[in-house]
Amino acid sequence: MTVIVQKYGGTSVGTAERIRAVAERVAATVQSGIRCVVVVSAMGHSTDGLVDLANQMMNEPNRREMDALLATGEQVSIALVAMALQAKGIQSQSMTGWQAGIRTEAVHGAARIESIDTARLDALLASGIVPVIAGFQGIHDGEITTLGRGGSDTTAVAIAAALRADRCEIYTDVEGVYTADPRVVPVAGKLSVISYEEMLELATLGSQVLHPRAVETSKQHGVTLVVRSSFTQAEGTVITDMATMEGMRIVTGVATEKEVARIAVLGIPTMQHHLSEMFTALAQEQVNVDVIVQSVVKTGEVDVSFTVAEADVERAIRICEGLKALLGYREIMQELELSKVSIVGAGMITNPGVAAQMFAALETVGAEIKMVSTSEIKVSCVIANEQLHEAVNQVHRVFALDELNR
Amino acid sequence: MTVIVQKYGGTSVGTAERIRAVAERVAATVQSGIRCVVVVSAMGHSTDGLVDLANQMMNEPNRREMDALLATGEQVSIALVAMALQAKGIQSQSMTGWQAGIRTEAVHGAARIESIDTARLDALLASGIVPVIAGFQGIHDGEITTLGRGGSDTTAVAIAAALRADRCEIYTDVEGVYTADPRVVPVAGKLSVISYEEMLELATLGSQVLHPRAVETSKQHGVTLVVRSSFTQAEGTVITDMATMEGMRIVTGVATEKEVARIAVLGIPTMQHHLSEMFTALAQEQVNVDVIVQSVVKTGEVDVSFTVAEADVERAIRICEGLKALLGYREIMQELELSKVSIVGAGMITNPGVAAQMFAALETVGAEIKMVSTSEIKVSCVIANEQLHEAVNQVHRVFALDELNR
Repeated sequence: MTVIVQKYGGTSVGTAERIRAVAERVAATVQSGIRCVVVVSAMGHSTDGLVDLANQMMNEPNRREMDALLATGEQVSIALVAMALQAKGIQSQSMTGWQAGIRTEAVHGAARIESIDTARLDALLASGIVPVIAGFQGIHDGEITTLGRGGSDTTAVAIAAALRADRCEIYTDVEGVYTADPRVVPVAGKLSVISYEEMLELATLGSQVLHPRAVETSKQHGVTLVVRSSFTQAEGTVITDMATMEGMRIVTGVATEKEVARIAVLGIPTMQHHLSEMFTALAQEQVNVDVIVQSVVKTGEVDVSFTVAEADVERAIRICEGLKALLGYREIMQELELSKVSIVGAGMITNPGVAAQMFAALETVGAEIKMVSTSEIKVSCVIANEQLHEAVNQVHRVFALDELNR
Repeated sequence: MTVIVQKYGGTSVGTAERIRAVAERVAATVQSGIRCVVVVSAMGHSTDGLVDLANQMMNEPNRREMDALLATGEQVSIALVAMALQAKGIQSQSMTGWQAGIRTEAVHGAARIESIDTARLDALLASGIVPVIAGFQGIHDGEITTLGRGGSDTTAVAIAAALRADRCEIYTDVEGVYTADPRVVPVAGKLSVISYEEMLELATLGSQVLHPRAVETSKQHGVTLVVRSSFTQAEGTVITDMATMEGMRIVTGVATEKEVARIAVLGIPTMQHHLSEMFTALAQEQVNVDVIVQSVVKTGEVDVSFTVAEADVERAIRICEGLKALLGYREIMQELELSKVSIVGAGMITNPGVAAQMFAALETVGAEIKMVSTSEIKVSCVIANEQLHEAVNQVHRVFALDELNR
């Protein structure tokens, strides 16, 4: 018997009406003879209200209490979804994280799932009862924990892996994974299939469909993911193993990221080997560093450039300035109003010259390439904001992604 | 070391500001060298919103899911109160019903507490950490249960009993137990002490300060209760064992209940012994019958009168009419716009003639006594609504309760 896990995000369960629509979809799945496990997030923006209350109680609310507080959001959703299913004649039972046997490490606010004891889940499934499980939460030694960002997706994938489910469907407010952001590239097309690896690059590059952690977990356990809309019947995008995919596109998609800033630390004497301390200091202060480029300008001296989110620029510079004595650099420069455009594609591995094609496309639209970073299946270029729109459309065209939509 | 349990109701934790005020009070208690356990209800009317959502999901929502849903209300409160305490430098930890070891019977929506495993609680108290426990909820075999009406008070009392606490303080929006409703009797005074038995009669008679279940549990376990306001520093009312009280007032208080209706089932042949079936049928349909009076009018025939809430009259009459063949009565009559006025006092036991004094008081104000019901420490009379106000004030005066306030 086919077993699938369906995960519905906050928007999909945002109102009583939408919860009934979710129940409708689950009921249809069950009635088609499939065993279904449902994982849900907190309703819409209900979590924001709880965070707001917590912040009125104390600065930097205690993480243990924050977990106890936030876990209620999903608990409300599971009870309501279970009721809505029962109203449609589908036997159903809600399960909190601890009831579903989701054991995590002893970290509040960002715990990793360590194991899932599926005894209760198995019993429900064997009795034909649809379990409705709270995403984002687990238990460690009697303490409620939460999984942090992307937590509900991760719960769904972990449950699918533990049950050896046939697939894990992630329902969201978009119809799948696109070749580019349709708001930027009007001819962007929906991908029918994409590999874990490509999806990981796209996820970290700002396509907010799926949290990288969930993709990573799927890849580890070989769980086939499907991203689709909870508002339409469209087919969605399948995310699966590269090896099982027929024919590899060279470039699968174009991702963009705005509000990028570049910081250049110039003239660092090469006898000083303290670069790692700079990036450690940045990481400790929660400054997310993305592209890093190091170049030797003249003998005995290096320049290091890196990108951070525009919001973090001042903080990052302050941290670097604090290390001036240690690093012995000459000066720090910053450049704002930048964007990053990236192409992702598993086919790049076997097709040299892809990066060159991309540079050419950017040159065509007059975009100066400020920084470049590459991986086996990705090429990222930092350019000025003002050229982003034209650049993305040009790159999309050059790699024949426009045609996918026709 | 003195251990006390403090319970704060929904109004006391209704807003962020009020939660901070609760934390202030708990902090002061802890700083005075007392070990404190806090029990809280859901914030203000948050439960109503959840019930409303549930009713949008299905008619008569499944009770198991309703418990999972409603238990979130208290879970929000405990986390916020624990944070507010931490913000004041008081070590504190929230505990859901299951974390606090509150085991109940396997009934959803109205479970009774069976036992409390205080291992975790004891450990927290021994470490000087203030436990903040969710009222109203428990666990049975991995299932979340709720205790139904008056649940949070009952949780507090049960915890106090399990910990052999020195007392259990119930914080509410009134300053204690009064000799009468101050809205009806302006000279009503706050009682400094009252016995469990008197409180039980007052609680069931409509003084909504404490749920009878909590009083009953306190009595069983000899837990000293204190009812006081969370908004003032006033002393409150101590509820304790009759035996420990010095000097017994003959009458402790006057209670009233409005919107009472009387149903009279007339001319039931005495050879028919099916009266119990009538009251069983009413109970099964959730009609709450209060005063019952049976009288023999002529040989071989009885009349039975009983009171119900006005809202239940039509339903009650329909049920009785359905039993006409079985009971063989002559006719049913109803009387609306009635009220019940009751005096309660442990001293009545040893003071005969109290009922007569009450009847005289009611006669003085021209109130016709429709029904009478007595217990060892209570006399209740049903009279017309229009005489209620004058009657209550007269009774209050006659039994010298006016003087308590001076």
